[in-house]
Amino acid sequence: MQKLKCTIAYDGSGFSGFQIQPNQRTVQGEVEHALKKMHKGENIRIHSSGRTDAGVHAMAQVFHFETPLSIEPAAWRNALQTLVPDDIDIRSIEVVPKAFHARFDAVAKEYRYFVLNTPERDLFQRHYAYFSNAAYAVEQMQQACSVFEGTHDFTSFSSAKSTVKGSKVRTMYQVECFRDEPYICFILRGTGFLQHMVRIMVGALLEVGRGEKTVTDIERILQEKNRIEAGVTIPPEGLYLWEVTYPE
Amino acid sequence: MQKLKCTIAYDGSGFSGFQIQPNQRTVQGEVEHALKKMHKGENIRIHSSGRTDAGVHAMAQVFHFETPLSIEPAAWRNALQTLVPDDIDIRSIEVVPKAFHARFDAVAKEYRYFVLNTPERDLFQRHYAYFSNAAYAVEQMQQACSVFEGTHDFTSFSSAKSTVKGSKVRTMYQVECFRDEPYICFILRGTGFLQHMVRIMVGALLEVGRGEKTVTDIERILQEKNRIEAGVTIPPEGLYLWEVTYPE
Repeated sequence: MQKLKCTIAYDGSGFSGFQIQPNQRTVQGEVEHALKKMHKGENIRIHSSGRTDAGVHAMAQVFHFETPLSIEPAAWRNALQTLVPDDIDIRSIEVVPKAFHARFDAVAKEYRYFVLNTPERDLFQRHYAYFSNAAYAVEQMQQACSVFEGTHDFTSFSSAKSTVKGSKVRTMYQVECFRDEPYICFILRGTGFLQHMVRIMVGALLEVGRGEKTVTDIERILQEKNRIEAGVTIPPEGLYLWEVTYPE
Repeated sequence: MQKLKCTIAYDGSGFSGFQIQPNQRTVQGEVEHALKKMHKGENIRIHSSGRTDAGVHAMAQVFHFETPLSIEPAAWRNALQTLVPDDIDIRSIEVVPKAFHARFDAVAKEYRYFVLNTPERDLFQRHYAYFSNAAYAVEQMQQACSVFEGTHDFTSFSSAKSTVKGSKVRTMYQVECFRDEPYICFILRGTGFLQHMVRIMVGALLEVGRGEKTVTDIERILQEKNRIEAGVTIPPEGLYLWEVTYPE
């Protein structure tokens, strides 16, 4: 048996999220279906760095799986690419040590969120960026971003329905906001993220940008550890799992 | 009865073309379905500037229709927008004289074709540009473009299956090719276009860019009036109906 680490990109707009679910089109479902074909009907389970919600995209999602097949990694990539649908890109496949685990070994994750900030919506971007024609004060948002950097309990910025037991303490290495016309981009890089956390954080940051919340409000909400205060979960179409980092 | 001229954009990737067809999702089908709702079940037929094929997009397709409803044009736009699916944008609606006809009154049409010319394909562009990682000599292509300008019989550059009787003579006001990184863009503006004409012309131009045909070949093929010579019909995803022009 060989253990393989696979990095994929996907267009989340056609999937009911990453995780396999009965009667739903999911990324995991499509990849496992392709692997099953390669393994003559044998079920191969993949283990990802984490799930993504319906409509959320990935530039570099990572999963591992074990296989009895002995195929060169480069040939693996091509073989798998021909078997997955065209909204999934197999970016790389490499052999990893038996102990590797896509979720437990990840030391950092980066998400990016794109807001299309133009007067009119763009039909062709409707699945790929969150449209808003409001006026945003980027400098204020950047100040609020820095509140999130460092180690905090993110209870206020995670889904109230979250089933995560354990700690909601996470470390943010980088939280940044800038204009890249016609977009406003957010970069969030940290040890890990709770359910809906990026979308709730960016939602609150956008409220700061529109003058509906202050930087001080963000500090207070973070300290209160109460989901009710933070605001809405903004839509998935602007969100991209950008990178998963493992130790060298 | 009022006659209305409506300009719409659409993402062609989810449609089996513009023209209504039984058991197919089409732009005309969706728009007429929305109009039927507004007219309490009455069928309203729309008349477009021309059809577009499956997968072809529009920035500004135009159609007209007649209605017994007396609604302000601005309210019309909003009402119709809420009833069409989100891959159609109602850009404008205006009252026009009874004699107006979206197809017969059009004096020019502009199409644009986008080639994504990068080393690797971009998953998120797969429905919106034609991917090619070949090397293209844009200057050569621009020279070949100018062969098409003016008035010619375009038999060599139209579908062999075309059912158009009548003349295949069309006038091209502008045929242009330029880089707009990471794309190669083509602009084609003329009195009208035959079936598949833009995709066959751009296909031949790309062959010139790759050194597979010369500018002299394009001149010869145009003169021969024989569909066999021109080359393949390239895919629809790079093609946009950009503008339809009417007399002031």
